[in-house]
Amino acid sequence: MKPLKIFSDLPLDAAALTLLTNGVAPHEVVLPARRAESVLAQSGFDPAFADADIAFGQPGADSVRQSPRLRWLHLASAGFTRFDTPEFRAEAVRRSLLVTNSSSVYAGPCAEHVFAFMLAQARQLPAALASHYANGSAPWNELRNSCASLSRQKVVLLGYGAIAIRLVELLQPFQMDLVAYRRQARGDEGIPIVAAGQLSAALSAADHVINILPDNPESRHFFSAERFAALKAGAVFYNIGRGTTVDQSALLATLQSGRLAAAWLDVTDPEPLPVDHPLRAVPNCHITPHIAGGHQHESESLVRHFLDNFRQFVAGAPLRDRIM
Amino acid sequence: MKPLKIFSDLPLDAAALTLLTNGVAPHEVVLPARRAESVLAQSGFDPAFADADIAFGQPGADSVRQSPRLRWLHLASAGFTRFDTPEFRAEAVRRSLLVTNSSSVYAGPCAEHVFAFMLAQARQLPAALASHYANGSAPWNELRNSCASLSRQKVVLLGYGAIAIRLVELLQPFQMDLVAYRRQARGDEGIPIVAAGQLSAALSAADHVINILPDNPESRHFFSAERFAALKAGAVFYNIGRGTTVDQSALLATLQSGRLAAAWLDVTDPEPLPVDHPLRAVPNCHITPHIAGGHQHESESLVRHFLDNFRQFVAGAPLRDRIM
Repeated sequence: MKPLKIFSDLPLDAAALTLLTNGVAPHEVVLPARRAESVLAQSGFDPAFADADIAFGQPGADSVRQSPRLRWLHLASAGFTRFDTPEFRAEAVRRSLLVTNSSSVYAGPCAEHVFAFMLAQARQLPAALASHYANGSAPWNELRNSCASLSRQKVVLLGYGAIAIRLVELLQPFQMDLVAYRRQARGDEGIPIVAAGQLSAALSAADHVINILPDNPESRHFFSAERFAALKAGAVFYNIGRGTTVDQSALLATLQSGRLAAAWLDVTDPEPLPVDHPLRAVPNCHITPHIAGGHQHESESLVRHFLDNFRQFVAGAPLRDRIM
Repeated sequence: MKPLKIFSDLPLDAAALTLLTNGVAPHEVVLPARRAESVLAQSGFDPAFADADIAFGQPGADSVRQSPRLRWLHLASAGFTRFDTPEFRAEAVRRSLLVTNSSSVYAGPCAEHVFAFMLAQARQLPAALASHYANGSAPWNELRNSCASLSRQKVVLLGYGAIAIRLVELLQPFQMDLVAYRRQARGDEGIPIVAAGQLSAALSAADHVINILPDNPESRHFFSAERFAALKAGAVFYNIGRGTTVDQSALLATLQSGRLAAAWLDVTDPEPLPVDHPLRAVPNCHITPHIAGGHQHESESLVRHFLDNFRQFVAGAPLRDRIM
């Protein structure tokens, strides 16, 4: 077998690059002239890509079209918006191009991030960490009594992929009432899946509305003014999916009306949200800068996940996290 | 049976007081002339206490001594420092006085509070919520890569009562390496108990050191300079027990040395910690004002827990959360 050429545009550190190079040997790692700024940033076309057999990273869809030899594309993210089009899917089928993503790498950190949001809200951490109240004072009693337990509360998950599956595991000790909404129910979800017609009712009953939707034409502004209006008073809204799935003006109005207890967002549109954006001025809107998937040794995790799949690829076995 | 007199000094709202009064009828609730400021604040002696059969709240140890008819003392806290003396224990035995606390009421909220601390630290929430970093920028990469997963990390629990038991349940999906230290191992803890001689080794291996120790003569300044010196570089220290168990000067020095990743404290000595206390100036020292046990409907939970025990008492059955 002729050595395969594995093009990678990822900004790997020396240890991760060594792991990759040794892991694929005797096959060959090909690096671009210019590396990406982050594991999420799409790279431009690089001449070295043109005769790669495998791509590992964040190439653009056009780059993939200009690489006729490419047989497998392994994305270094969980999201794959720019490939999630009927045209690209058709091309992948025509070319027998395998497409996988790194959702297994990000599922744990993303689930822990949204879980951290849920507990921080339940225990009122932003207000509590900023306060100096004396035991027994009126504001102390108010803060103390505004804390809530997650136990037995109601959750709606929007999207049901690897992140949701891990989150459901993490929430298990709280005996919460969990339901999920997804494009296509498969019947093996382990928690009830609500159909589109039942979604309003589910949203209106939920204490926690957890948006994990990816960005695609169907999901844009999925959380519209109408959907926010369906949420129950005192509910908490979380977004760990993509910022484009939320009508931010509608979210702002809902927060300002006082009907939502809080919003916790790891993703916004655009990113970063401008410093003077009105959502930043709402005291109960809590924003982290798209770090939910981050974790120590992220590059190494991405490489190990790729290598696991590479061994499958070479053996002609099924790939993990296959999306096309 | 002559109606029992139940003295309660708790600052119950109307709903909780009605619940209590109806719940004990035909027995009688007796209220003090002046009610306490919080469910944790010790009350002074009240003449109405002198002929009570049962006390439910926060009487002082002297008040109990001056109430010869008292047969059962039910404390509205988990802590019971002022009764945790050889003298009082001997008196309780001599008088056949039953003493119970409300640890079942506070175990869940306290466990969720320290768990919220752990996840907020793992996901770097204080820094992330305060940042506006652009995706791919150097500080963004640094923040993202400083996040960690709790999975498979090592934890030492100091103290192993109701809070620790609930916390161990909550941590189960993370497959952490858990050990506990307690005054007297019983053999039924479900996780390994380290003896005093093994404690230094356990502390030096732990990623998370969770102090749930109560205040008593043995526990004061349990976390001394020597014990802090035993912690491994990058460990995180949590205190959800009592502030007196920590030598705060030693904690400050350890944080300033950069060896601890962070400290998360719900309790301090004194409370509240003065606004200009040096621990408040350390960026990675995160302090909440003794609210870990708080939750919505706390008064009602305390009353329901008392009423469950009251029915046991009237039936001559064993009491829950008995401490003497």
